[in-house]
Amino acid sequence: MSSKSKGLNAERDLVHKFWSKGWAGVRIAGSGSMRYPSADILATNKLRKLAIECKTTKKVGKYIEKEDIQQLREFAEMFNAEPYLAVKFNRKEWLFLTIEDLEETDKNFMINTEKAEIKGILFEELIK
Amino acid sequence: MSSKSKGLNAERDLVHKFWSKGWAGVRIAGSGSMRYPSADILATNKLRKLAIECKTTKKVGKYIEKEDIQQLREFAEMFNAEPYLAVKFNRKEWLFLTIEDLEETDKNFMINTEKAEIKGILFEELIK
Repeated sequence: MSSKSKGLNAERDLVHKFWSKGWAGVRIAGSGSMRYPSADILATNKLRKLAIECKTTKKVGKYIEKEDIQQLREFAEMFNAEPYLAVKFNRKEWLFLTIEDLEETDKNFMINTEKAEIKGILFEELIK
Repeated sequence: MSSKSKGLNAERDLVHKFWSKGWAGVRIAGSGSMRYPSADILATNKLRKLAIECKTTKKVGKYIEKEDIQQLREFAEMFNAEPYLAVKFNRKEWLFLTIEDLEETDKNFMINTEKAEIKGILFEELIK
């Protein structure tokens, strides 16, 4: 399976998880290709809304373009949602991080497994 | 161009229109294939949120499955959005209808060009 379809399947799994817990979740189409602020997933339990940018990787660290984070921030603001980055390292669970949890470099934001495990929260913590 | 890609292009045009007017709009992925409540487009200007199911047709009337309308209703409720049906007849502008504007038959909801033009509102009226 390509890493792209693996990422897509992981996003769909996450959407299913939201519904299984009484939340509504949708994947946003073409979030990577449109030039507008966007996120990969928007979810709500009526009280809270979450805008989530998803990243999967086989490596121990993941760089995220500043543009992606800026789009997430703007999208979340428009929809009055909490912005989160969801990162899934190989064979691990999704970990959810706030933008503040990410390390900002000159050109990118960065997260590695170690920091993700310290700062990130699991799905069950995210929705409680 | 297939009617499917024509419909998709028309939806993308609608998303562009929202952004051009200071609204945020996104297309929802796989809204027809997931078994959860959904809509085709979600848009907001921060004050209002709209959940829109889009239908394009070359015919003078369009049947909409009750399931589609039920999904739209539930989705809109979860996201605290106003549910709308957007219908685009051949070479016409999008017209926006509330669920109450539709004619309910035994098996479906139905809208024809005549009723859509009487009851529907144009994009500019929708967002004002």
